Amino acid sequence: MELDFVRRLVKPAESKIVLLVMDGLGGLPREAGGLTELEAANTPNLDALAVQSICGLHQPVGFGVTPGSGPSHLALFGYDPIRFQIGRGVLEALGVGFDLTSQDVAARGNFCTVDEQGRITDRRAGRISTEKNRELCALLRQIRLPDVELFVEPVKEYRFLLVLRGEGLSDEVIDTDPQEVGHPPLEPTASSPEAAKTARVVSQFVAEARRVLAGHAPANMVLLRGFSKRPTWPTMAEVFGLRAAAIAAYPMYRGVARLVGMEVLDTGERLEDEFDTLERRWRDFDFFYLHVKRTDSAGEDGDYDRKVALIEEVDAQLPRLLALRPGVVIVTGDHSTPSVLRSHSWHPVPALLWSPHCRPDGVNRFGERACAAGSLGPMIPAVELMPIALANAMRLEKFGA
Amino acid sequence: MELDFVRRLVKPAESKIVLLVMDGLGGLPREAGGLTELEAANTPNLDALAVQSICGLHQPVGFGVTPGSGPSHLALFGYDPIRFQIGRGVLEALGVGFDLTSQDVAARGNFCTVDEQGRITDRRAGRISTEKNRELCALLRQIRLPDVELFVEPVKEYRFLLVLRGEGLSDEVIDTDPQEVGHPPLEPTASSPEAAKTARVVSQFVAEARRVLAGHAPANMVLLRGFSKRPTWPTMAEVFGLRAAAIAAYPMYRGVARLVGMEVLDTGERLEDEFDTLERRWRDFDFFYLHVKRTDSAGEDGDYDRKVALIEEVDAQLPRLLALRPGVVIVTGDHSTPSVLRSHSWHPVPALLWSPHCRPDGVNRFGERACAAGSLGPMIPAVELMPIALANAMRLEKFGA
Repeated sequence: MELDFVRRLVKPAESKIVLLVMDGLGGLPREAGGLTELEAANTPNLDALAVQSICGLHQPVGFGVTPGSGPSHLALFGYDPIRFQIGRGVLEALGVGFDLTSQDVAARGNFCTVDEQGRITDRRAGRISTEKNRELCALLRQIRLPDVELFVEPVKEYRFLLVLRGEGLSDEVIDTDPQEVGHPPLEPTASSPEAAKTARVVSQFVAEARRVLAGHAPANMVLLRGFSKRPTWPTMAEVFGLRAAAIAAYPMYRGVARLVGMEVLDTGERLEDEFDTLERRWRDFDFFYLHVKRTDSAGEDGDYDRKVALIEEVDAQLPRLLALRPGVVIVTGDHSTPSVLRSHSWHPVPALLWSPHCRPDGVNRFGERACAAGSLGPMIPAVELMPIALANAMRLEKFGA
Repeated sequence: MELDFVRRLVKPAESKIVLLVMDGLGGLPREAGGLTELEAANTPNLDALAVQSICGLHQPVGFGVTPGSGPSHLALFGYDPIRFQIGRGVLEALGVGFDLTSQDVAARGNFCTVDEQGRITDRRAGRISTEKNRELCALLRQIRLPDVELFVEPVKEYRFLLVLRGEGLSDEVIDTDPQEVGHPPLEPTASSPEAAKTARVVSQFVAEARRVLAGHAPANMVLLRGFSKRPTWPTMAEVFGLRAAAIAAYPMYRGVARLVGMEVLDTGERLEDEFDTLERRWRDFDFFYLHVKRTDSAGEDGDYDRKVALIEEVDAQLPRLLALRPGVVIVTGDHSTPSVLRSHSWHPVPALLWSPHCRPDGVNRFGERACAAGSLGPMIPAVELMPIALANAMRLEKFGA
């Protein structure tokens, strides 16, 4: 449903909502006929909660779409990830915890290799190490340009973040990355008249970068793309009437939560720390987003057993959450990261939604196949979970008297 | 699907469709692990029909949305309730059976309390009795204004209906209800130039109402909102090629049926009367909407057992319907009214669709959990049931040759 439609129905209530996200939760069997990571895990607390919940598999973005963490989280927060798109540059800034101001234009940078004619021969500079990246970013930071402040932050391997800060900057600048080798980088070009100054600044930066990096092949040039400004979106307080808090240890997730107006709480890296934070700040908010990162990391590492063990650790913490007497609990992932694939995937993601007012559907196990038979269905759009949570929290008015 | 898309596929056929609506059918268990009202009811006829049907749970308006009776019925009639919205004033008119002409502007009225400075202190006038409401409406009816005819009808407690009838009236007048106390009512204001005259008339009415009600605190003033005209929508004959009839005892449902061009049949208040009417008029129409109100009333009263008993009464009448040899039968509710919640709710609603051409799905019981496993799925939009019914009635052409 449209955010504006939901917004008109929102009414105040006392009931609290908790969204517990195990990153990359969805999985696949290790061998034909086997169990997924979640199905293999011993999860007595989640299973008991499933009995009293409505269950299903959600689609983060759409059929067959493998989402990045930004879009998949926006969907869980109730924001259509196709309508609310985060620019590539901004996404990199969120990922490294760079706090963008409204004056900033961010771009994703690649170190690349160019030949003597300036034509690109490798768009990723032979995948240089992150260590090398740091050294080169230190060089780029020495570039000085009139009227704008520059920030260059290493990300990983050949990737970096460029931020331009100054008056009157626009993000309407076309990518310099031609997306193929054999051509020189494209000249920074404004796609609207307001961006003329920004394009000029970017040109100066690129020229300086070429000079500074000249002796550093294979990383002897830069490509820039995804020029973007921090979006100004309606906050969760505005659209859902929720004082919302994020409990997440990693910069990307803290950043996405901030984009929808959540307060990002101080917390530690361990699972126990996050649940401590939840308990400590319980009285202060209506909505808590609690993010568990390491399930995804285990999947990315192809470590089936570690992913199973991490899910079991989360299960062991669940009673602490339930003891707080929340009004609504959602347990799910932001996407699937099957350890056999070692990457994010398009597979629908197990989800349960508990409230005292839900209509339990007979699912008695929290796992992919069990959830597929639940009353949320095997393909509910992730973005629809939030309206259902609001309804169960008695936070939506009747539509049409 | 869009109505215009369906409309282009419609072809004539002889097959009759019956839509049997038990108002507020969907329910919840009375205690954890228990049965819903429908699951608890002994419904041999519905269960036998389910075996030969496709079953599911429908969403009247959308995920998490608790619908009023107007939108939920429009959806069952095949009209997207978000696109086809009924103004508040018109809805009140439908509810009391006031027959609006195309010249009328209707508004929902509240009696309210104002202090000596004219500021609202209670938007509902201390929830005065319906009896008191009738007395005050009689006073308001004495108001005379130039050029317009006035109608004032009591609804319930502090609520009444105001209808202005005359040449050149517009509904583009902003609510006088500021929706909060401490302020005076807002001055009636036209939101378009065409509504200037109407705003003036409303101002005069409000001034007169203030004078007439002066001594009647707590009901010493009125608030008006939802100025609206009877919508002119395509009829079911136009979009579906169906001569459609409504068999409903309550004004609201008769009114909504009229908005989509149904002929509203004379009938009695008892269930048997409605089935008598169905039999009597069977040859005259292609589509029958038969409405059972009391299941909803039992839910609203929190009376689980009465709701169960009423469902069983409907089950007992079902053979009469089947004996008429309909082409398609849909049995469902317009929304859920769980007796434990004593109100409409957002929970999906059990539905079965029978025809000799459907593909039975193995569901052998008409109940919430059984239907969730059916082939209509656990969350089909209610608005999609009508195209499926038309298809099963052999009333839709092939798309795309």
